[in-house]
Amino acid sequence: MSSGPVTPPDRPDAGRGAAGPAGDVVGRPVGSLGQAARMASRVVARASSAARDAAIGWWADALERNVDQILEANRLDVARAAGAGMDVTGLDRLRLDEDRVAGMATGLRRVAAMADPVGEVVDGWVRPNGLQVTRVRVPLGVIGVIYENRPNVTSDAAGLSLKAGNATMLRGSGSAIGTNSAIVALLRDGLAATGLPADAVVLLEDTSHRAAVEFMQLQGIVDCLIPRGGHELVDSVRTHATVPYVIDGDGNCHLYVDASADLDQAEEIAANAKMQRPGVCNSIETLLVHDAVADAFLPRVARRLAGVTLVGDEGTRRRLPDVGEATEEDYATEFLGMRLAVAVVDSLDAAVDHIHRYGSGHSEAIVTRDLTAADAFTSRVDAAAVVVNASTRFVDGEELGLGAEIGISTQKLHARGPMGLRELTCIRYVLHGNGQVRT
Amino acid sequence: MSSGPVTPPDRPDAGRGAAGPAGDVVGRPVGSLGQAARMASRVVARASSAARDAAIGWWADALERNVDQILEANRLDVARAAGAGMDVTGLDRLRLDEDRVAGMATGLRRVAAMADPVGEVVDGWVRPNGLQVTRVRVPLGVIGVIYENRPNVTSDAAGLSLKAGNATMLRGSGSAIGTNSAIVALLRDGLAATGLPADAVVLLEDTSHRAAVEFMQLQGIVDCLIPRGGHELVDSVRTHATVPYVIDGDGNCHLYVDASADLDQAEEIAANAKMQRPGVCNSIETLLVHDAVADAFLPRVARRLAGVTLVGDEGTRRRLPDVGEATEEDYATEFLGMRLAVAVVDSLDAAVDHIHRYGSGHSEAIVTRDLTAADAFTSRVDAAAVVVNASTRFVDGEELGLGAEIGISTQKLHARGPMGLRELTCIRYVLHGNGQVRT
Repeated sequence: MSSGPVTPPDRPDAGRGAAGPAGDVVGRPVGSLGQAARMASRVVARASSAARDAAIGWWADALERNVDQILEANRLDVARAAGAGMDVTGLDRLRLDEDRVAGMATGLRRVAAMADPVGEVVDGWVRPNGLQVTRVRVPLGVIGVIYENRPNVTSDAAGLSLKAGNATMLRGSGSAIGTNSAIVALLRDGLAATGLPADAVVLLEDTSHRAAVEFMQLQGIVDCLIPRGGHELVDSVRTHATVPYVIDGDGNCHLYVDASADLDQAEEIAANAKMQRPGVCNSIETLLVHDAVADAFLPRVARRLAGVTLVGDEGTRRRLPDVGEATEEDYATEFLGMRLAVAVVDSLDAAVDHIHRYGSGHSEAIVTRDLTAADAFTSRVDAAAVVVNASTRFVDGEELGLGAEIGISTQKLHARGPMGLRELTCIRYVLHGNGQVRT
Repeated sequence: MSSGPVTPPDRPDAGRGAAGPAGDVVGRPVGSLGQAARMASRVVARASSAARDAAIGWWADALERNVDQILEANRLDVARAAGAGMDVTGLDRLRLDEDRVAGMATGLRRVAAMADPVGEVVDGWVRPNGLQVTRVRVPLGVIGVIYENRPNVTSDAAGLSLKAGNATMLRGSGSAIGTNSAIVALLRDGLAATGLPADAVVLLEDTSHRAAVEFMQLQGIVDCLIPRGGHELVDSVRTHATVPYVIDGDGNCHLYVDASADLDQAEEIAANAKMQRPGVCNSIETLLVHDAVADAFLPRVARRLAGVTLVGDEGTRRRLPDVGEATEEDYATEFLGMRLAVAVVDSLDAAVDHIHRYGSGHSEAIVTRDLTAADAFTSRVDAAAVVVNASTRFVDGEELGLGAEIGISTQKLHARGPMGLRELTCIRYVLHGNGQVRT
C-alpha cells in the first residue's frame, strides 16, 4: 500500500494547495481541486485492494457513527429547499433519515466486499518475435460525477469509484450542499485515517453552472464524467463537456407481446414491468401487442393494470373504447409514472420498427413462445438489453449479479447497460520483450 | 443475409431521399445522409459475415479494376492542391499511385480474411431465479470518421467498419474530395452489387466546417466518431461533438533507460524507437536516462542517433556539451521528426513523474534488467501501452496481432491503444427467462 502526498505535480501549475489536511476543500477552485484529485488518483491506483477496502469500511462506520451530524446538515438543506419552493418529490429525494443513512453504510460495505476488478489480466498472447503481450485492467484515474438532489449518491459513487482504484470528483446540487459537504468531510477523514490521500474524494462546493462547465472541461484531469440526472443535465454535458463521459440516459422501454405469447405470462410481466416501480428507468412506457392476440390480451391486461392511465392507437381503442388517443409525443416519452402508451402492431417487424423509432436503447422485452421470434427480436433490437419472457425490471446491476451500479449507460461506447465496477476501469497494454526492435 | 431498403424510417422526418441507387450521394445534406446510413446500419448489422466479406472482397477487386479512374481523380485533386500551395508533405499524403491503390486493395482483402467479431458471446451466467444472462458482441451502428489528406483512409475505414457490421459516414478533406468521391462510388456500387444497402457507406461531399460540425452533432445517428488528424481536428471534435467519440491523440512517447539497463539493448531500442520511422505516433520524443548510467550511455547513444537533433537538460549537456538546451516546450512536444529531447533523472520515480507530467498517455518504455524496476514502471505509468525491453514501435494493431487498426486511442474510455475490429463493436445484454418478474 502506498500513501502520502505525491510529488512532483503532474503539471507545472499544479501542487499549490493540493493534498492538504482532510476537510480543506472549501473555497478551492475547480482546477485546483481537479489537480489534487489527479495526483491522489496516482496513489489510490497503486494502493492495495486491502487498503481501499479498509477506507470504504471506515466510511461505512463513520456514516453510522455520525448519523446525527449528517441528518442535522440535511435538515437545514431540506428546510432551505422547502422555503425556496421545492416540490414534494424533490424534497423526498433530498431528505435523509436514519434508515437511508444506514442504507448508505450497508451499500458501502457491500461494495468493499466485492471482488477487486483492478489487476485482472483480461487476455494475453505471445507474438512470433517473442514479445509478450498482456492486457491488464487498471483504474480509469479520476471519475467525475454530476448529480442532482439525492445525497446518497455521494457515498455510493465514491465507494464504487475507490473500489475500482479511482479518485472521485463530485458535484451535487446546490440544494444538497450542506449534506454533501458533511458526508464528504467524513470520506476525506476516512481516507486520511487509513493512509490514503484525502484528495481521492473531492466535492465541488461551488455549485454554480459556471463551475459545472469548468468541471466538464477539465481535460487531462477527468478521465470519465458520469452525469446522473435528467435531460437538462445530460444535454448540458453533451453541449459543454470536453472530457470523456458516459451518458446514463432515458429509459423509454417497451414490452412486445408476440402472436405466440403465453398471455398469462405476458400479463404478469406487463404488470411487473409497469407497476412494480413505475418511477425508474427500466420500467416500461409502451406496450406493443400483436394484432393476432390483441382481442384476447388487451382487455385482460387493461384490468390488470388498474390505476395506470392507458393511451393507445386506433387498434387499441377499438378493443378498449375508454382509452384515450396516444400522440407521437406519448410514444416518445419516458413517463416515469402510472401512464402507459399502447399500440397494436401487425408483425414483429413492426414492433421492432416502433422500438427503433421511439426507444431510447435501454431495455426492450418480448413475450413469445416462438423461437424464431425470440431470435429475431434479440438479434435485431438495438438496445443495451433485450429480454425474452421476463420483466425489464431485471436490467439493473444488482439484479444481473454485477453488484452495485453507478448508472445504466444508454450509449454504446465503453459501457452499455448497467455500469458496475468493471466499467470504472480501463485496459493497459503491457509488453515484455528482451530487446525486440521493429524491422 | 438481409438486403434491400429498410422501411419504415427510424424517425418521422427520415426516409426522404434515403437508400436510393448507388452513387446518389451528391448534394444530400448531412442529416439526410446520416439518416440513410443509420437505416443501412440496421441491415448490415444483421447481414451474415459472408455477405459483409463478399462486399469487402468486391471492393478490393473494384479498386484494382478502376485504378485508372481513381488515379485520374487523384491527379486532379493533387493539381488543385499544388495550385493552392499545399506543401510537399501534404501533397505526398494526398497522392495515390498504382502501388498505393494496390495496397488499399490488399488491406481490404486482409480485413475480409479476419475473424468476425460480431456475435461473440463475451460471457454469460445464470441468476438464482433462472434468468439466463449473456453479453453478446454486436456492431456499434454508424461509425463516423473525419480525416485529413490521405485518401487510403476512405477504403481502410469503410472496410474495418463494415467487417464489424457497421455503416460508415466519411468526411475527408476538401483537397481529396475528387479521389474520395471516386472511391466511395465504387464502394457503394459494391454494396449494391452484393446485396447490401449502398448507404452503408456515405461520404460528406460538403467539406465545409459547418457541415463537419453538423456531422459531429448527429445525435442518435453517429454511434462513434473517430477523428484522424492533428490537434486542430481533435480540438474541434472536443469542442463541437455531441456524439460519442474516441480520440486518436498525440504520441509524446518516452524511453527510460534504467540504472540496471543492458546498454547494448538500450542503444538498439533507442535507435529503433526514434529513427525507424520518426514521423509516426509510436516513435519516441524523449529519452530519459538514469544518472548512474548517463556517463556510459549518453555518448554512445548520441553517436548511434547520428542525424537526430538532440536537446537536453543540464545533466545531458554536462555529458554532451554540443547538445542544445531543452525547453519545457521541447519535453511537451511530439516532434514527429528527427529531434529528440533528453533528460537525466536520478530515479525511476523521477522518470515516471516526468512521463506523467509531459506524456500523452500513448506508449512508454523502460529498458532494465531489474524486476522490481520493470514492475514499478508497468504498474505505475499511466499510458495505453507500457513496454519493457522492446521498442515502442510495436504499439500498433498489426504488430500486436490485432490485424488492421483504425487508429490508436489515447483516451481511456471504450478503446485504449490500437483500435481494431473489436473496438468497432459494443456489447448487448441478452436475457432469457421463462416468466420471471421482480419482487
